[in-house]
Amino acid sequence: MARFTASNPRFEEEARAIFSNQSVMRTLRAKMVSVLPGEVEIEMPYQDSMAQQDKFLHAGVTTTLVDTACGCAAFTLMPPGSRVLTAEYKVNLLAPAAGQRFVAKGWVVRPGRLLTVCQGEVVAYADDRPKTVAIMQATMVRLSGDA
Amino acid sequence: MARFTASNPRFEEEARAIFSNQSVMRTLRAKMVSVLPGEVEIEMPYQDSMAQQDKFLHAGVTTTLVDTACGCAAFTLMPPGSRVLTAEYKVNLLAPAAGQRFVAKGWVVRPGRLLTVCQGEVVAYADDRPKTVAIMQATMVRLSGDA
Amino acid sequence: MARFTASNPRFEEEARAIFSNQSVMRTLRAKMVSVLPGEVEIEMPYQDSMAQQDKFLHAGVTTTLVDTACGCAAFTLMPPGSRVLTAEYKVNLLAPAAGQRFVAKGWVVRPGRLLTVCQGEVVAYADDRPKTVAIMQATMVRLSGDA
Amino acid sequence: MARFTASNPRFEEEARAIFSNQSVMRTLRAKMVSVLPGEVEIEMPYQDSMAQQDKFLHAGVTTTLVDTACGCAAFTLMPPGSRVLTAEYKVNLLAPAAGQRFVAKGWVVRPGRLLTVCQGEVVAYADDRPKTVAIMQATMVRLSGDA
Repeated sequence: MARFTASNPRFEEEARAIFSNQSVMRTLRAKMVSVLPGEVEIEMPYQDSMAQQDKFLHAGVTTTLVDTACGCAAFTLMPPGSRVLTAEYKVNLLAPAAGQRFVAKGWVVRPGRLLTVCQGEVVAYADDRPKTVAIMQATMVRLSGDA
Repeated sequence: MARFTASNPRFEEEARAIFSNQSVMRTLRAKMVSVLPGEVEIEMPYQDSMAQQDKFLHAGVTTTLVDTACGCAAFTLMPPGSRVLTAEYKVNLLAPAAGQRFVAKGWVVRPGRLLTVCQGEVVAYADDRPKTVAIMQATMVRLSGDA
Repeated sequence: MARFTASNPRFEEEARAIFSNQSVMRTLRAKMVSVLPGEVEIEMPYQDSMAQQDKFLHAGVTTTLVDTACGCAAFTLMPPGSRVLTAEYKVNLLAPAAGQRFVAKGWVVRPGRLLTVCQGEVVAYADDRPKTVAIMQATMVRLSGDA
Repeated sequence: MARFTASNPRFEEEARAIFSNQSVMRTLRAKMVSVLPGEVEIEMPYQDSMAQQDKFLHAGVTTTLVDTACGCAAFTLMPPGSRVLTAEYKVNLLAPAAGQRFVAKGWVVRPGRLLTVCQGEVVAYADDRPKTVAIMQATMVRLSGDA
């Protein structure tokens, strides 16, 4: 990972600002763990209010977490003044999202002027034993700041 | 739609129970609009607490909504005693999720003994003008009640 | 379908040229059935040389067919001088691709200046009874002619 | 990779038989490069007969190659007497498939009694310089031999 260099010198500060401006991240009590060029980690604790019928984290919630990780990872490699949007993603759910905390990582596979392809994963920690519960493959779009 | 017949006579009651047991649906203030054999509609109002950086509904939140719609739609066609899990999904985001309320519809494309393939969509209503903001293609798995 | 209007008056002629310039379409003995604004149908006969281990059409072959249908459908709505590329797709295989001929249809769900989202399906005809064997959700990219 | 152990002692021989029984692999002049527990590599040369309009390998052809690699990789971890089918896949096309030969690798991310989740990639070699042109995320289904 982190094989990329960022052309935007303020990539970390600005990626953290995107994260902070997503109110849903506060609702999930999520924190940014790390921001590297092309790679971002986000963490959230388990919350009863975000569960599906079996008291696991809802698949859409793990998707929310890893989508933001991928979007921010894509953003770190974009030129200054860019905005990032998700065009599409695909998620495979590998195991029930059971645990006390969940770490989502997103990383860039191929940056592009327009489209950036990312992969991501969500790891659940139950009593500190990690288990990968979801993997993502996603396409992010760059908008210039004015668009 | 609704070209299917349900083998479980209690399909509606039980699909509504799955929905009610998903705490995240309460958090989203979502309501089940309709439950037909192979087709389910869910609705939620806009909430500031679920937004991304531009004050649109976060893509993961629209995904949460339509994933539950697809899962419940798949469940309606399963035999009594079944449980449903999401294996995977793919979502294309067609437009920013801007509006006062959001209606997710999920429907079965091909039911199966084991795997049920669904499609879904999320329509945003801004001043009652509808706009499709996301489409989903998903695979649901049937578990027998004991599994 | 065909709810769109084409801004390129030569959309049909040019979509047929793209098809004709894909040598793999000749290899598959595929024919363009119809070209409407935002909707394209392509057909191929079964061929032993394109099968998987159970003598069904290989999933990658049905994907090839419906990818070209979606790409051409996207092209019909692009302005003159455009080129089209596939960014990504997702395919669910609903049933074995058994039959004497296969009809792939691709249609535009949301056209865009840059990205066009399409859906598609492949219907197998065994003794003239149709069966949907695959569905696709895809993103196509527009390049200007010079890019 | 190859972190898995195969419960079927004849996994390599049987995976090679699946490959050999896919007539489309002969049509593509593909060869199996390697078969390890949970990881398979397949290679094919460029062929004019498999191209799209710009003389690159058609996306559906690279998909065919990596789908077979993923399917065979999933098979290597299944118990004796199993059959494998593709349920669904998603492919991101990262660059035009330009080159003299193409190597597809498929590997298992999570094996399962019923569903096996795989990832894959296709690397194009132009004058021996490698370039990743496609990545796949896929779900394979196990059937018992009699099903």
